Amino acid sequence: MVKELPGMVLKAIGVVKSEIRQPSMRDSKDVVSDIVVDANLTEALDNLDEFSHIIVLYWMHQVTATKQPPTKVRPRGNRALPLMGVFATRSPSRPNPIGKATVRLLKRQGNILKVKGLDAINGSPVIDLKPYIPGYDSVAGAKVPPWVSKR
Amino acid sequence: MVKELPGMVLKAIGVVKSEIRQPSMRDSKDVVSDIVVDANLTEALDNLDEFSHIIVLYWMHQVTATKQPPTKVRPRGNRALPLMGVFATRSPSRPNPIGKATVRLLKRQGNILKVKGLDAINGSPVIDLKPYIPGYDSVAGAKVPPWVSKR
Repeated sequence: MVKELPGMVLKAIGVVKSEIRQPSMRDSKDVVSDIVVDANLTEALDNLDEFSHIIVLYWMHQVTATKQPPTKVRPRGNRALPLMGVFATRSPSRPNPIGKATVRLLKRQGNILKVKGLDAINGSPVIDLKPYIPGYDSVAGAKVPPWVSKR
Repeated sequence: MVKELPGMVLKAIGVVKSEIRQPSMRDSKDVVSDIVVDANLTEALDNLDEFSHIIVLYWMHQVTATKQPPTKVRPRGNRALPLMGVFATRSPSRPNPIGKATVRLLKRQGNILKVKGLDAINGSPVIDLKPYIPGYDSVAGAKVPPWVSKR
């Protein structure tokens, strides 16, 4: 049974300001967005701009209405593809609608981060920021199936 | 102000079975663990084993007791380093104690995934699984500061 454990409640640490206004399949790699972090957490951003890239975890708030997300989906809604297990896809319709994006950090100014390549829509609550560290976050020679189109 | 939004409550989709019993700085890259996924979500794992590597998001349940996590920490507890903003580090003491690991998927058997390189301790609730897709998750030539030791 899928359980809600006591204490697994997320705090919004900030919010995304983006020109992306609704979920879409558009390529967001050139989209520039702001992440406005809670002013009380400004100090927690210190040193982050020593990294060229950061990992953004955010809440896909427009899909949280789904009480019972599907276990099978078609990747990117592509009807040419068979149904796949949702955990084998990046579909937002998942048990916990958490998005993960690796983005370029263009600038930090106080509690505001300007980033490039974030696919989160405007208003998405941000739940964590981590530095992108190749030794942890990158794998050489990883294998993906043919149905995954290159970005 | 850090807000708890209605609806940002996480469900455990599974649990980590690991020989790692308590938080430590040990290198986990050769640790083999099982992720036991909720049996109701078994189908949602279909096709995941077409990928060599997966991203595991998990709840660092042993640090959730901290009501007010520090905004500044020393990376890896290293006293030779100055205090850094917590979002510039991978410290578990963060506003939302979510861990992110990229691991090798060795085998899927029903609702159980055998993985290599997971740094989560035994009993950690798993909150999401995503396929590792180099085009989304990897960056060529990312810059990190000198104080980040290579893994």
